[in-house]
Amino acid sequence: MKSFASDNNSGAHPAVLQALTDANDGFAKAYGEDPVTARAEALFREHFGPQARTFFVTTGTAANITGLRCVCQPWQSVLCSEHAHITMDECGAPEAIGGFKLVQLPSEDGRITPGQIEPHLASLGFVHRNQPHVISLTQCTEFGTLYTPGEIRRMCDFAHKNGMLVHMDGARIANACAAQDCTFKEMTTDLGVDLLSFGGTKNGLVMGEAVVLLNPEIGEAIPFFRKQFMQLVSKMRFIAAQFIPYLGDGIWRENANHANAMAERLAQKAGAVNGVEIIGEVETNAVFSRLPEKALETLMDEYYFYIWDETERSLRWMLSWNTTEAMVDEFADAIRVAVEG
Amino acid sequence: MKSFASDNNSGAHPAVLQALTDANDGFAKAYGEDPVTARAEALFREHFGPQARTFFVTTGTAANITGLRCVCQPWQSVLCSEHAHITMDECGAPEAIGGFKLVQLPSEDGRITPGQIEPHLASLGFVHRNQPHVISLTQCTEFGTLYTPGEIRRMCDFAHKNGMLVHMDGARIANACAAQDCTFKEMTTDLGVDLLSFGGTKNGLVMGEAVVLLNPEIGEAIPFFRKQFMQLVSKMRFIAAQFIPYLGDGIWRENANHANAMAERLAQKAGAVNGVEIIGEVETNAVFSRLPEKALETLMDEYYFYIWDETERSLRWMLSWNTTEAMVDEFADAIRVAVEG
Amino acid sequence: MKSFASDNNSGAHPAVLQALTDANDGFAKAYGEDPVTARAEALFREHFGPQARTFFVTTGTAANITGLRCVCQPWQSVLCSEHAHITMDECGAPEAIGGFKLVQLPSEDGRITPGQIEPHLASLGFVHRNQPHVISLTQCTEFGTLYTPGEIRRMCDFAHKNGMLVHMDGARIANACAAQDCTFKEMTTDLGVDLLSFGGTKNGLVMGEAVVLLNPEIGEAIPFFRKQFMQLVSKMRFIAAQFIPYLGDGIWRENANHANAMAERLAQKAGAVNGVEIIGEVETNAVFSRLPEKALETLMDEYYFYIWDETERSLRWMLSWNTTEAMVDEFADAIRVAVEG
Amino acid sequence: MKSFASDNNSGAHPAVLQALTDANDGFAKAYGEDPVTARAEALFREHFGPQARTFFVTTGTAANITGLRCVCQPWQSVLCSEHAHITMDECGAPEAIGGFKLVQLPSEDGRITPGQIEPHLASLGFVHRNQPHVISLTQCTEFGTLYTPGEIRRMCDFAHKNGMLVHMDGARIANACAAQDCTFKEMTTDLGVDLLSFGGTKNGLVMGEAVVLLNPEIGEAIPFFRKQFMQLVSKMRFIAAQFIPYLGDGIWRENANHANAMAERLAQKAGAVNGVEIIGEVETNAVFSRLPEKALETLMDEYYFYIWDETERSLRWMLSWNTTEAMVDEFADAIRVAVEG
Repeated sequence: MKSFASDNNSGAHPAVLQALTDANDGFAKAYGEDPVTARAEALFREHFGPQARTFFVTTGTAANITGLRCVCQPWQSVLCSEHAHITMDECGAPEAIGGFKLVQLPSEDGRITPGQIEPHLASLGFVHRNQPHVISLTQCTEFGTLYTPGEIRRMCDFAHKNGMLVHMDGARIANACAAQDCTFKEMTTDLGVDLLSFGGTKNGLVMGEAVVLLNPEIGEAIPFFRKQFMQLVSKMRFIAAQFIPYLGDGIWRENANHANAMAERLAQKAGAVNGVEIIGEVETNAVFSRLPEKALETLMDEYYFYIWDETERSLRWMLSWNTTEAMVDEFADAIRVAVEG
Repeated sequence: MKSFASDNNSGAHPAVLQALTDANDGFAKAYGEDPVTARAEALFREHFGPQARTFFVTTGTAANITGLRCVCQPWQSVLCSEHAHITMDECGAPEAIGGFKLVQLPSEDGRITPGQIEPHLASLGFVHRNQPHVISLTQCTEFGTLYTPGEIRRMCDFAHKNGMLVHMDGARIANACAAQDCTFKEMTTDLGVDLLSFGGTKNGLVMGEAVVLLNPEIGEAIPFFRKQFMQLVSKMRFIAAQFIPYLGDGIWRENANHANAMAERLAQKAGAVNGVEIIGEVETNAVFSRLPEKALETLMDEYYFYIWDETERSLRWMLSWNTTEAMVDEFADAIRVAVEG
Repeated sequence: MKSFASDNNSGAHPAVLQALTDANDGFAKAYGEDPVTARAEALFREHFGPQARTFFVTTGTAANITGLRCVCQPWQSVLCSEHAHITMDECGAPEAIGGFKLVQLPSEDGRITPGQIEPHLASLGFVHRNQPHVISLTQCTEFGTLYTPGEIRRMCDFAHKNGMLVHMDGARIANACAAQDCTFKEMTTDLGVDLLSFGGTKNGLVMGEAVVLLNPEIGEAIPFFRKQFMQLVSKMRFIAAQFIPYLGDGIWRENANHANAMAERLAQKAGAVNGVEIIGEVETNAVFSRLPEKALETLMDEYYFYIWDETERSLRWMLSWNTTEAMVDEFADAIRVAVEG
Repeated sequence: MKSFASDNNSGAHPAVLQALTDANDGFAKAYGEDPVTARAEALFREHFGPQARTFFVTTGTAANITGLRCVCQPWQSVLCSEHAHITMDECGAPEAIGGFKLVQLPSEDGRITPGQIEPHLASLGFVHRNQPHVISLTQCTEFGTLYTPGEIRRMCDFAHKNGMLVHMDGARIANACAAQDCTFKEMTTDLGVDLLSFGGTKNGLVMGEAVVLLNPEIGEAIPFFRKQFMQLVSKMRFIAAQFIPYLGDGIWRENANHANAMAERLAQKAGAVNGVEIIGEVETNAVFSRLPEKALETLMDEYYFYIWDETERSLRWMLSWNTTEAMVDEFADAIRVAVEG
């Protein structure tokens, strides 16, 4: 299968699979009370600061909803971009399971600003409206774009000044940190982010996501919500184990750097083809583009990728930790042939 | 770690880990549209009949709630034993996520009867009461006891005659089928069970549970509920792959037979100690017992197991697919020494 | 219609209807910001103490669920009698709307004791179980029986010592206070009750219930929950106005005393008939009884009342503020004729 | 109080209060099984067609959520204008209680079109998205504007062709029908509307709203949802009774005609003042306007009305069934004085 559709289509890094085998050593306490889980949690503290509390879950949607629910009552609201995964791709879990309202803000490239939050503060104290309480940023965004550290810090300052919190959907946080050559802590804790959905699956794990509470004063009920939200895995060591090489041996950055580089490579090679439009800047591991209609059909016969927006005729190509240079080059050649006829 | 606490404390069968490696072959479509998932679903059809529709999830609680929610409106109710996992050990997921009411029926050994359901039919049509709609049986029960096929068939007949459905919580269905030397189909589809929570994790998987819809007329919304309930894993092939050796190569029965045999062995050896009471009959892989208080303390210093009921002073010893005869014998000896002083 | 079925079948006291007309004076702010509502709230403070915060709602179920939800997270639980209205007669609103679990305690006469709560404290801190947090008492109970002030105080002390709260379902609290010849405050605030569902409808209002928060430290989110739970009535003055004569002119006690006296009268007259069994003690406005089968059929042709429990063949006769002595006497005569043939 | 803020601030029509007194005739079955409720339900059938099923509730929010929940699963969505009451003014009840997602469509004047729904049909069958299922129109809109019968019919045709339903939020449906000089049936049933939130409170009732199911094939579970949503009032006759003069004696049209005429009068008189801008067309009983800042302050000292949108500096004046010509004229004069200095 030749996939440029999603980093979800990639497999697991060999070291991650090896970690599963290493963890399969006789009996261990269930539900996260085992030494492997303790080791993984310690690694998160190393990467996010000593106050970080980590709760493993099984999907990105679960990380978002579990984390948000712990800090947001059903009569409050979460403000996010209109393109945010929580509003576009979670089949109503925020509403049906979280119970809270999503307030969606218009956005060109997936990013939002304090200026867009401001008018919603007028609802504070008005009993007919959900009370704005959490701002959710996706870093990198669903378009692969990045908030700068300064933008995140300003959003956090704005939130805290108004009694609100900042959640970061970090389904691809590794790609973001790799792109900005910073640590996880520099991207989150140091900027004032209150809680994070930490994604590992897209970047080389079998299955491993986590809610990371960075603000020590929030989320004390999270153990109960995680269980109630059907996320308390019994053989937790097998989730946790994956993070040991991922965080401990730097696989996260290696994989993310590679995926980002492959996106840059594809954008350059495909963008050089006359008739191919690369949309926006390529900041992480996603490339958005437009192709002539006929070329598109030819290409989709052999390669798997998504039409992102039917109306705008935009395409998304997603590069993965295990996309090779050869794959990129072959794909770029195929694009050239398809477009140039 | 010397654990007789739970089959959740056991690890994964080597063939299951190997299946993960085998599935880690380049790119594959996400969310279950891959060939490995297709193969695993086909195996479920082989084992449960061609009409069986299988939806993988990540925890036993998720299997129960996703399945039940698909067939039960919030104004209906699920009737179960007062000891059922759904009411005792899911931190309110049935109520908070499913929305429906649990009607709990008294039970000595985890089993319930049509005679206990009957009086609740009087609520049908009475708008102030949740409408009885699903009967949930745990096979084997939380006490390790078994419904006979005849009992299950009679419950299903009773349910269907009254417009109700039967759900089976099969977190340990392998142990049940092994104990009764029958196939999965003989235990479920053939008896009229409508839907099943199929458990694999306790019997040797890394993580793998499933909702299996046996009645072809129910649950059409399950794909949406699974996603909304945060159970649609992106790299689904890694859940599905585990079922290939488990169901395809008979590991399920081999593991379950072994765990059951270890329980029988422990019950016999420990039960032969003067002062040790084995409670009830050992039908699958659980042994319930009572020990003198002082012996208990000594024993718990070295061995890990649960006090089941503080009031009744009962203990639960759970045997696993990877509990060896030597472990059982050592534990039985330790019991003897602790009790006899 | 000759109804001994429910105090819900009675009408409204003339002074209450007059209060609606009095309140219908031109324009007034909606949603409770009007002077009539302010006056009614002040009356509640007079009756329950200056710290009492009152939130009007439209049904008894709404009072229970709104109040309980404000103090109980979905991963916590409410402990109540197995006969409690919240578990028997609210069609799953506690679970589906409140989200929390109800833990039902066996009870002969509708009352529960601290000794029944105690074993459930073992679940505290155990992540698989809902955390016990609120004890709900019905005063008077669904059987018309009463907790003594001492019993309530002991339950409150027990609850507070264990970090729990006490909710009182006071759908018929007027009947309880009338029977014990005490004030509302003596029955609630003074004993340590944290929050109350105050019922007025059954005792002579058109429609008027309220959540009364007695503990000043709880329920700060109640205005938002009341709105979200669809209970924030726009022309609130018409709910509030009813409480002005009800609480201000003593109608509550007058009506309740009368209903209670009618129950006593009926119990004495009917109980004197050979073949009629009065079950338990008549403490407020309910009479439970057993009649010969044939007499029952005859009687139900003309009089409207409920068979309470089909299995036990028990009947419930409920007396109302507008049941007259003549009605009682006529009914008692009819019973005599039906039974004696 | 001089209120032009909301028709919720008006009182009850004398005939409506009289109906309460008339209904207060001894005992009657509770929960809607009484003859007064039967009579009111029959009146709804007269006005909406013989297939109409009516379920009384206590607030407009309750009508919306109860009705929508009966036809919309939590994994489906309701599409509405961004200004719709369900998304702006119900404190998250759609999400937290209904469970479904609201998809908000941009709108200048509160109206939406089939062309805006169309792109969302692309989500059908995509498991990551809520499935579009109900279109909710407000008639008249939150801006007092009107859909023409033709527009409603086209929306219904579009919906049905795509397997969807149309809900009408008729909190002010009387004003709409009065403005278009049509019957309720001509505005709903005849055009293909599937279900209606029928509002009476704003137009002269004490408290009375209803879900009216017009499509005979939907909503069979509504009795249970109404109870669970805390809307099954015990002394239902007092809700129902109000509709007897309201629908039976034409009060609805008389009141609505008057309120609409008062809006027209105010718009003309105030609009004639130099410096006052009337925004949009006045079609029912709402007038939107802009005033010079200084005049506004002066005016708000004496008159009660809302600033509708702080950013746009728009005001809303709402006229009621009991606003008199003298009040309008006095207010218009006050506006003139304030503006002209």
